Amino acid sequence: MSAPDAYIETLCSSAREAAGVLARSDSDSKNAALVAAAEAIQDAEREILTANAADLERTRLADALHERLMLNPERVAQMAEGLRQIAQLPDPVGRSFGWSARPSGIEVGRMRVPLGVIGIIYESRPNVTADAAGLCVKSGNAVILRGGSEALNSNLAIAGALQAGLRAAGLPDAAVQVMSRVERDLVGVLIGSPDHLDLIIPRGGAELVARVQDEARVPVLSHRHGICHLYIDSAADEAMAVNLALNSKTRRYAVCNALETLLLDEAKAHLLGPITEAMRSRGVEVRGCERCLERDPALAPALEQDWSSEYLGPVLSVRIVSDFDAAVEHIERYGSQHTDAIVTEDAGRADEFLRRVDSSSVLVNASTGFADGFEYGLGAEIGISTDKLHARGPVGLEGLTSCKYVVRGRGQVRP
Amino acid sequence: MSAPDAYIETLCSSAREAAGVLARSDSDSKNAALVAAAEAIQDAEREILTANAADLERTRLADALHERLMLNPERVAQMAEGLRQIAQLPDPVGRSFGWSARPSGIEVGRMRVPLGVIGIIYESRPNVTADAAGLCVKSGNAVILRGGSEALNSNLAIAGALQAGLRAAGLPDAAVQVMSRVERDLVGVLIGSPDHLDLIIPRGGAELVARVQDEARVPVLSHRHGICHLYIDSAADEAMAVNLALNSKTRRYAVCNALETLLLDEAKAHLLGPITEAMRSRGVEVRGCERCLERDPALAPALEQDWSSEYLGPVLSVRIVSDFDAAVEHIERYGSQHTDAIVTEDAGRADEFLRRVDSSSVLVNASTGFADGFEYGLGAEIGISTDKLHARGPVGLEGLTSCKYVVRGRGQVRP
Repeated sequence: MSAPDAYIETLCSSAREAAGVLARSDSDSKNAALVAAAEAIQDAEREILTANAADLERTRLADALHERLMLNPERVAQMAEGLRQIAQLPDPVGRSFGWSARPSGIEVGRMRVPLGVIGIIYESRPNVTADAAGLCVKSGNAVILRGGSEALNSNLAIAGALQAGLRAAGLPDAAVQVMSRVERDLVGVLIGSPDHLDLIIPRGGAELVARVQDEARVPVLSHRHGICHLYIDSAADEAMAVNLALNSKTRRYAVCNALETLLLDEAKAHLLGPITEAMRSRGVEVRGCERCLERDPALAPALEQDWSSEYLGPVLSVRIVSDFDAAVEHIERYGSQHTDAIVTEDAGRADEFLRRVDSSSVLVNASTGFADGFEYGLGAEIGISTDKLHARGPVGLEGLTSCKYVVRGRGQVRP
Repeated sequence: MSAPDAYIETLCSSAREAAGVLARSDSDSKNAALVAAAEAIQDAEREILTANAADLERTRLADALHERLMLNPERVAQMAEGLRQIAQLPDPVGRSFGWSARPSGIEVGRMRVPLGVIGIIYESRPNVTADAAGLCVKSGNAVILRGGSEALNSNLAIAGALQAGLRAAGLPDAAVQVMSRVERDLVGVLIGSPDHLDLIIPRGGAELVARVQDEARVPVLSHRHGICHLYIDSAADEAMAVNLALNSKTRRYAVCNALETLLLDEAKAHLLGPITEAMRSRGVEVRGCERCLERDPALAPALEQDWSSEYLGPVLSVRIVSDFDAAVEHIERYGSQHTDAIVTEDAGRADEFLRRVDSSSVLVNASTGFADGFEYGLGAEIGISTDKLHARGPVGLEGLTSCKYVVRGRGQVRP
């Protein structure tokens, strides 16, 4: 066995063993570990910030990346608070539900169980280490974390505090492991066998996700890009429409649920002026389709590639569409099945939009910014799945579990 | 583009288009197609039997395989009846559920949607063509069926009738396609891109499943082997225990939920005699552990490999275990996480077994033979998933769908 293989085998077999212990642990032990981990993170504030300073110094990052990597006392406190909040969420594991009596006399239900060992590959933000580990521990899974090499010292310091919390609650510290070796080919070995992992979650750029999907021999829960649309229907409340467009675009630019393309029903084409003005006043560049340019020749033109661009910045493409069907067809053709919304007072068209648009979140008369695990009541999210299998949309604790069938009989045999 | 690639592209793009139509179809259209397909199968009985006769003649099969491949008027009628039953099941698609009002004022629910295009690879039994296609159409998915080459004529004749049913209901016949070319490398192309399929379901031997898992670049729902256990606890009702052991083992031998290993608590070791006698009277060979041999030196010895063997035939391995924990440990070590059962009158131990044993079906005081979609109330099953992601255990219509989040607001924006 070559050295990388041996390293991964050791990592995974100790994770597998820890997963067995976690799966049998009751909620009290898991919650105690999370609360103890929160305390340990607070206690280790100085060590964590020192490690983070080393990371920041070692790498010369562009400002945006520096901002993502940087920790301060407030961010350390947020990580600890996040763990305490996860401790307070209901434990999905071991709950049985959906019992029904069958004609044979048996009673059939289902029970939630952990998945086993989960791998997470992510970039830059060290707080993911605490958040993701907290969700995995609470859902009874062991986790192997592979953060960006630029954040290695920070991630190891945070994981050390998490492991102290696990030990304090009598749980194995191999339940949370950060990969201390960051050679690229190790990832290939990690995701190359179902014996290593039960699930891999890539969180990062399109290139990372594509590589994981291509190389993985284990199930993948992908978090891909969001080309999100807001369609202003002919029956829209106009003030609401302008307000929702603004909030969906400008609340935050770099998030996957930010608005990228506004579809304007031709019956509401007169809203182009007010919307363009409002966007410009916030510093957003508007790029219009040909029909938009006819109305406002000063607009920048939207090219074909604009319709499939995730700007993640202060740019908005606008298209005037002839009707509801044209709007849905545009979304089907150019969208990424992430998050799409309609503004309308017509209940029938709202229903039809909810049913026809095949995206992980479909909204009526609400900002695309609501597509988020916390806003949906999941408590916290490990990511937003753009896959259709297993979990779709924001993924919380339930998405990190599976269900088995449980049957109670009184000696029934099958004829 | 090489010829195999072009063939698969054509197959998949017409399936993708049909999936779009199916996803928008209401229940009445889909049910009408299923009922019309049932009639078309009955009307085509002669053509189907002629095609089947050609398959049977072309291949010289062992008796068991001949029996699996062979159709007769009764089996044709069963296929038609199966489609009528699927038409009567509730339609999972478009139903929304789990609505809750959030502090922000938005209401969040979920809605079931089809997966898209599903591939199914299977062997021998031509009835799978009708059953699987029926479940896919009802759940709003297009399906590409790749049966065994030995059944090609039969499968094409059945698919022809199914397509006539689709046309009669105004639905695209590309919703159900049988691969008419059976070169082996075509499967690799089919499962090699997420653009082709949203899900691949391999139904067949271990070699087929392993090959699909290794080559697939799309999600896989596997149906693997069942090494099923029945543990007779120290608190078992003895008559019930013997009865359940017999039914679990002898109801049918070649099914994945058949009993393979009986675990006998040492407090119930005296049941070895009656059980061995009952099994022998049904022609079942019993192989015992060392402690069994001490009690009955005439028994055949169970070797290490017996504990991980799926006999699928009239053989049973028996092990005397010292207690509940030893039974669970044996199942963890040798089982295949398919179906495992306990016989006990101790409610606490029953609960602990249900919780601790990590198999797709876990039963208390009931035959392992109940692990089946029809017995569980799913109406019909496309297979039994031994995976943990997406669907686990018997998979019916719901397992062929995904859920999106649906949100209704009144203009709410996110701060």
